Amino acid sequence: MSKSNLVTPRTLPGFMELSPRDQIAFERIRAALVDTYRLYGFFPLDTPVLEHSEILLAKAGGETERQIYRFQKGDSDLTMRFDLTVPLAKYVAKNAGELTFPFRRYQIGKVYRGERAQKGRFREFYQSDIDIIGDGALGLENDAEIPAIIDTLLRRLGLDEFVIRINNRKVLSGFFTMLGLGDQIENVLRTVDKIDKIGAEKVREELTDTFGIAADVAEKVTDFVALKGSNEEIIAALRVMAQGDALFTEGVDELETVCRGILAFGVPADHFRIDLSIARGLDYYTGTVYETTLLRHPEIGSVCSGGRYDNLAGYYTDRKLPGVGMSIGLTRLFYILNEMDVLGRDIDAPADVLVIPMTEDLAPAIRISASLRAAGIRTQIYMEKKKFKAKIGYADKLHVPYALFLGEDEIREGKVAVKDMTTGEQQTLTLEALIEMVSAAMAIKAAQPLIVEQQ
Amino acid sequence: MSKSNLVTPRTLPGFMELSPRDQIAFERIRAALVDTYRLYGFFPLDTPVLEHSEILLAKAGGETERQIYRFQKGDSDLTMRFDLTVPLAKYVAKNAGELTFPFRRYQIGKVYRGERAQKGRFREFYQSDIDIIGDGALGLENDAEIPAIIDTLLRRLGLDEFVIRINNRKVLSGFFTMLGLGDQIENVLRTVDKIDKIGAEKVREELTDTFGIAADVAEKVTDFVALKGSNEEIIAALRVMAQGDALFTEGVDELETVCRGILAFGVPADHFRIDLSIARGLDYYTGTVYETTLLRHPEIGSVCSGGRYDNLAGYYTDRKLPGVGMSIGLTRLFYILNEMDVLGRDIDAPADVLVIPMTEDLAPAIRISASLRAAGIRTQIYMEKKKFKAKIGYADKLHVPYALFLGEDEIREGKVAVKDMTTGEQQTLTLEALIEMVSAAMAIKAAQPLIVEQQ
Repeated sequence: MSKSNLVTPRTLPGFMELSPRDQIAFERIRAALVDTYRLYGFFPLDTPVLEHSEILLAKAGGETERQIYRFQKGDSDLTMRFDLTVPLAKYVAKNAGELTFPFRRYQIGKVYRGERAQKGRFREFYQSDIDIIGDGALGLENDAEIPAIIDTLLRRLGLDEFVIRINNRKVLSGFFTMLGLGDQIENVLRTVDKIDKIGAEKVREELTDTFGIAADVAEKVTDFVALKGSNEEIIAALRVMAQGDALFTEGVDELETVCRGILAFGVPADHFRIDLSIARGLDYYTGTVYETTLLRHPEIGSVCSGGRYDNLAGYYTDRKLPGVGMSIGLTRLFYILNEMDVLGRDIDAPADVLVIPMTEDLAPAIRISASLRAAGIRTQIYMEKKKFKAKIGYADKLHVPYALFLGEDEIREGKVAVKDMTTGEQQTLTLEALIEMVSAAMAIKAAQPLIVEQQ
Repeated sequence: MSKSNLVTPRTLPGFMELSPRDQIAFERIRAALVDTYRLYGFFPLDTPVLEHSEILLAKAGGETERQIYRFQKGDSDLTMRFDLTVPLAKYVAKNAGELTFPFRRYQIGKVYRGERAQKGRFREFYQSDIDIIGDGALGLENDAEIPAIIDTLLRRLGLDEFVIRINNRKVLSGFFTMLGLGDQIENVLRTVDKIDKIGAEKVREELTDTFGIAADVAEKVTDFVALKGSNEEIIAALRVMAQGDALFTEGVDELETVCRGILAFGVPADHFRIDLSIARGLDYYTGTVYETTLLRHPEIGSVCSGGRYDNLAGYYTDRKLPGVGMSIGLTRLFYILNEMDVLGRDIDAPADVLVIPMTEDLAPAIRISASLRAAGIRTQIYMEKKKFKAKIGYADKLHVPYALFLGEDEIREGKVAVKDMTTGEQQTLTLEALIEMVSAAMAIKAAQPLIVEQQ
């Protein structure tokens, strides 16, 4: 094909495509998430990327509609999923008769939003969700377990300086009702939700100017959500404020129960706190809500968010299915961690050992590679006919930690010459000693944190 | 929402959506594939599901066009990927300057084909691909390593009765040229490719009736591809047939080298054989080709197919990038194995242990669960306020192998009462003894084959 006919290879803007090394780092983080979810007894779930538009848009508003990938194929009106929650609702409604409740599932999958492309914003991105769905009822203990899982997860990734911020929608709705804003709750919630981004003053402005709320009432709203103190102090203050609004009191009770539960689940006290400004504006939450802030990187926004919803699948079934869950925007999180250069890079090679045969006959290299693989050591044989320098350069460029040389001497003696590519040190070992050394070194590397927060 | 407004929850036909138990089995098979690819030193790769249509269709013919999901979004003409090879070609062409060759990558991802929906045919399905891409050249040793990986993989899954069938396109093209069919090679290849399905007679009919090939020549074609014997016998027969066609001779040389290499890589002689009828009709292969047949289930067709191509990315770059690889239609394979009921079901629960607290205070249950999880044991705490029968019924329905009861007596004594849900046996153990017992039992289960071929 002549040059002029070539199609320029390019990837759609807003669609992440990583370098091989970065992909390894991504897969390690994904594996840590899966492993954590599995340890907590969650089922895996995998639903289609494409669904009937009618299903995905049963509940969606105008904004969602504009951001979706929707098209016609034959007689079918199809949409690419824009989250993992609506497909879960469909799945649970469809299979409610066969499922055992509480149904705990994790799902890590790509979702699609046709947002304006800009740096760090993705149109195709992974979400990593867990949810616990009850049949008719679901204990508040589950609301406390979710932050415990977030805590385990983030610590497993190597993070320690984070705080899970907890609130309860009933507290907010109840308080706004007590202020006489009962018919504006949605508007107030959505506005308050922006307080981290735009500040209290702008929130008050929007409440008065856009929604015609009196200035003193708007001030009470922003004062309320800015309440500071220990969890116990905030709960005590809320108790004082209760003026007979049943929803408010219910919310305060739930918030107190959930905070006690989180402590009981072993989450350190400095890893979570009540924050009355957490509203999760556009979401369908009805009780507990969470956001998680990395203290060194508050500008990222929340890395794990979620909460409690009264009814997962009301658009598909009359069966009441309350649930609680949380979601991680994995692609965006990875992008930011990578930009910040805080990803642990200790195992970013595709192999632990590169075997470089120095003889025509590959048989000894193949035999040794099989033994290494049987011991769980990732092993590649370099088979191209290149100069020695090119072979060792290959190990170097791929950051493979060990290169083995198999010459006639080594083969005759039943030994291998191994070069530590990091130190440059070379030694001759028996196969058993080699396996022991590499396994020990890789175990140390595997135990390194996936994310290394800089001091 | 009133009943009449409900949207019926349904999934698109041809889109697999598994039960939670089946999903666990699927994930175990996927994990075995990933683990095998990693042990052989392959990089992971993840490319977008959506690409510019111009990219994906650079090379596609009419048939591919009809089967694709293609749509307009704003100014963009988009297509959902229909395989993982074209995206790989784009990726390698785009990043050739930064990649180190040979570039070995695996990718497991969903692809989309708008085929007519029928039982066992999927419109969204996982492909599981590995490829080794060279820069300018790539040694034939790689053609021999791919079957070794297939062999490792299938044995890892628990399969033993399979044969990897090997051929070389140059042998076929060379032979057809010697028969005077040099200008009909594509047609002959595509027709021969159907011989497993329609038989030799129908192939001859199509060659004579559709392509106007003389009956005696058509017979030579079907006689040739039906040649039987050991690999050595077939190679010897091919040597005799060589009549100075350079391509044919080159193909025979390659076939012989690759077969020797496969043996050197440790593949048992009964797991591979030359089969001159393997043509991979519609594919872009130029040398070695493979198909893999499960001997007990030949009706499935090939479960791993692949081969050598001269130039991966000629539509996108002038750089010559030869490669060799193989692909597994994972969704279809899983579907068939599941239908045949040969999937090992030893670890199909979401947890190894269900902790059932018998006291109000969850603290002891939480403490014990944390210890179990730290030991790698998947543990769920049952937290709903239900009758005991419902709690134990939950463990039973989910096939959780062990249920722990934590009553006041056990808590006081620092022990746990554990019920083996399979045998019904109950005993009281220390936490250490429990961890030891469960870990040992789960290790045995984890070592069970993923696929159990029935005798």
